[in-house]
Amino acid sequence: MAEVKNRQWLLAARPLGMVKESDFRWNETSLAQLKDGEVLLRNLALSCDPTQRGWMAMDTYVPAIPLGAVMRAVAVSQVVNSRKSGLAPGDLVQGMAGWEDYTITDGRGIFSMEKLPPGTDPLLALSVLGLTGLTAYFGVLDIGLPKQGETFVVSGAAGATGSVAGMIAKIKGCRVIGIAGGPAKCAWLVNEAGFDGAIDYKNEDVGAALSRLCPNGVDVYFDNVGGEILEKVMDRLASGARIVLCGGISQYNNPPGMFGAGPRNYFNLILRGARMEGFIVLQFAKRFPEAVAELAKWHAEGKIKNQLDVAHGLENAPKALLRLFTGANLGKQLLQLATPA
Amino acid sequence: MAEVKNRQWLLAARPLGMVKESDFRWNETSLAQLKDGEVLLRNLALSCDPTQRGWMAMDTYVPAIPLGAVMRAVAVSQVVNSRKSGLAPGDLVQGMAGWEDYTITDGRGIFSMEKLPPGTDPLLALSVLGLTGLTAYFGVLDIGLPKQGETFVVSGAAGATGSVAGMIAKIKGCRVIGIAGGPAKCAWLVNEAGFDGAIDYKNEDVGAALSRLCPNGVDVYFDNVGGEILEKVMDRLASGARIVLCGGISQYNNPPGMFGAGPRNYFNLILRGARMEGFIVLQFAKRFPEAVAELAKWHAEGKIKNQLDVAHGLENAPKALLRLFTGANLGKQLLQLATPA
Repeated sequence: MAEVKNRQWLLAARPLGMVKESDFRWNETSLAQLKDGEVLLRNLALSCDPTQRGWMAMDTYVPAIPLGAVMRAVAVSQVVNSRKSGLAPGDLVQGMAGWEDYTITDGRGIFSMEKLPPGTDPLLALSVLGLTGLTAYFGVLDIGLPKQGETFVVSGAAGATGSVAGMIAKIKGCRVIGIAGGPAKCAWLVNEAGFDGAIDYKNEDVGAALSRLCPNGVDVYFDNVGGEILEKVMDRLASGARIVLCGGISQYNNPPGMFGAGPRNYFNLILRGARMEGFIVLQFAKRFPEAVAELAKWHAEGKIKNQLDVAHGLENAPKALLRLFTGANLGKQLLQLATPA
Repeated sequence: MAEVKNRQWLLAARPLGMVKESDFRWNETSLAQLKDGEVLLRNLALSCDPTQRGWMAMDTYVPAIPLGAVMRAVAVSQVVNSRKSGLAPGDLVQGMAGWEDYTITDGRGIFSMEKLPPGTDPLLALSVLGLTGLTAYFGVLDIGLPKQGETFVVSGAAGATGSVAGMIAKIKGCRVIGIAGGPAKCAWLVNEAGFDGAIDYKNEDVGAALSRLCPNGVDVYFDNVGGEILEKVMDRLASGARIVLCGGISQYNNPPGMFGAGPRNYFNLILRGARMEGFIVLQFAKRFPEAVAELAKWHAEGKIKNQLDVAHGLENAPKALLRLFTGANLGKQLLQLATPA
């Protein structure tokens, strides 16, 4: 294997404002020798996630990616060569890899590497059954605590996490309203994902639409965007409301230190006896197997539809990530590199 | 009784910026006749509370006080005359009254009138055993959920609610750090109230002091002030931290619509898997008897000290209320009008 070329994208610059293609640098190198305890992985599919901008920019819940290092990504990969017990060539794994054809890893780290059952669909494993689906699962069920008949609003509703969050809330008997950008996404929410209503934030007055669609206020708000939409929802909280802070993509591309003001009306949390709670899906790591089983059941029953948005080829990795920040993706953005051997 | 003069303060203007004496207008009138179901009360002591500015300014969790109406206040009063079953002359009651010598009421309303045991100390009933103490009790125990050995920070720590909140957290085994204005208050917190540390926000760098006194971060923050101090604490949250939103006195005197930005770093709630939750003490009304009994026991055992700051005479009502916003008060600000007959 020592002769195999490895193509990769390195982190060239910390993002200032919107993530740009020039924040990355293309590199071609040869593979190092495997050390004891390591595996050589062929990366089959890479997950594109808003949180990757955080990894590029600064230390967050994980240390920042060093400048000049391979861009980090969650991936499904196939073992090519193994000096690690329990893994053999051909095995499929999910874990932290990078924007490169091949990754050498000991499998430890912030997301420990997991072996997948033979025949696993890499794209399904990275979407509904991956961190995206798990984030929706724990955010809705453990933080949002939706009750039958409550009004559940989700922003970034046509995205990978938001769409699954809304469908889980439907399973739990909520009236679900999604906020998304553009008529196509809104039509998808109502016609395909089974939402009870959709608000097109690019073409509608979000406050007025919320007032119309949520006449008794919002009981649970699953927030993926932050900023002004968070404030509009907070003006319409029902008593005892829960806000699930999952992300704030409207704010991620701000310059450092300008992440964006918190909601001006945070005091409504007092007036409504309401709660705003954040989480990192890793805090639920011990319960991932239970959640994956439940999500797989709902997916098999057709209660959760898995909407994918798949780009192809390593050279398109920066473009695929950028789609998240321009709102181009419908459902889970993935980058497919290869199919299992 | 029809000849008795009633002196009162009416709401003359909605506050703009700091509450001013000119927001009130002195009035002298005669008492109306009692109707069936009403009682005539002699107000003995009035509670001064930051939330009163909200009642003056706008509809909040209760409707705004109408312009020209008597300024609203929680009071302990003595029944002078009764056409209401269950109440007789001489009985002591606590409920919503006003800035006036006498109040005629049917006892209904946002805080329903409660009969107090004979011999009750009006000042104790309005402080540790009143809404102030109850706010601390439910805020700490039901929202903050402190655990033995955790670090508990409270702002407005020398105030009526903050001081009791800190003492309850001490009872629950926390390390308690109070933030207050000026060396006298800080000395009181450590020497009298039994806090483990105090930060003088008027003379210290709050962020640096928090970093020094809370090296493992803040597990529970009981917020009475909002604004910049909230942000400083949010920069230092421990994983799984709980922020109890009780008040935001640093923001109350802003002009309408300028209530103040929420914390710029609210996103730390995600990074730390933390929660920010507001409450109105009325949501716990059914459990007030249990809480009053527990608070009375702790007070009798000397575990909660009742620090009072008592002004005298109805003519001083505006000045007494203003002390809250200038931070002049140490402990519970009250206005004593009379002693029980």
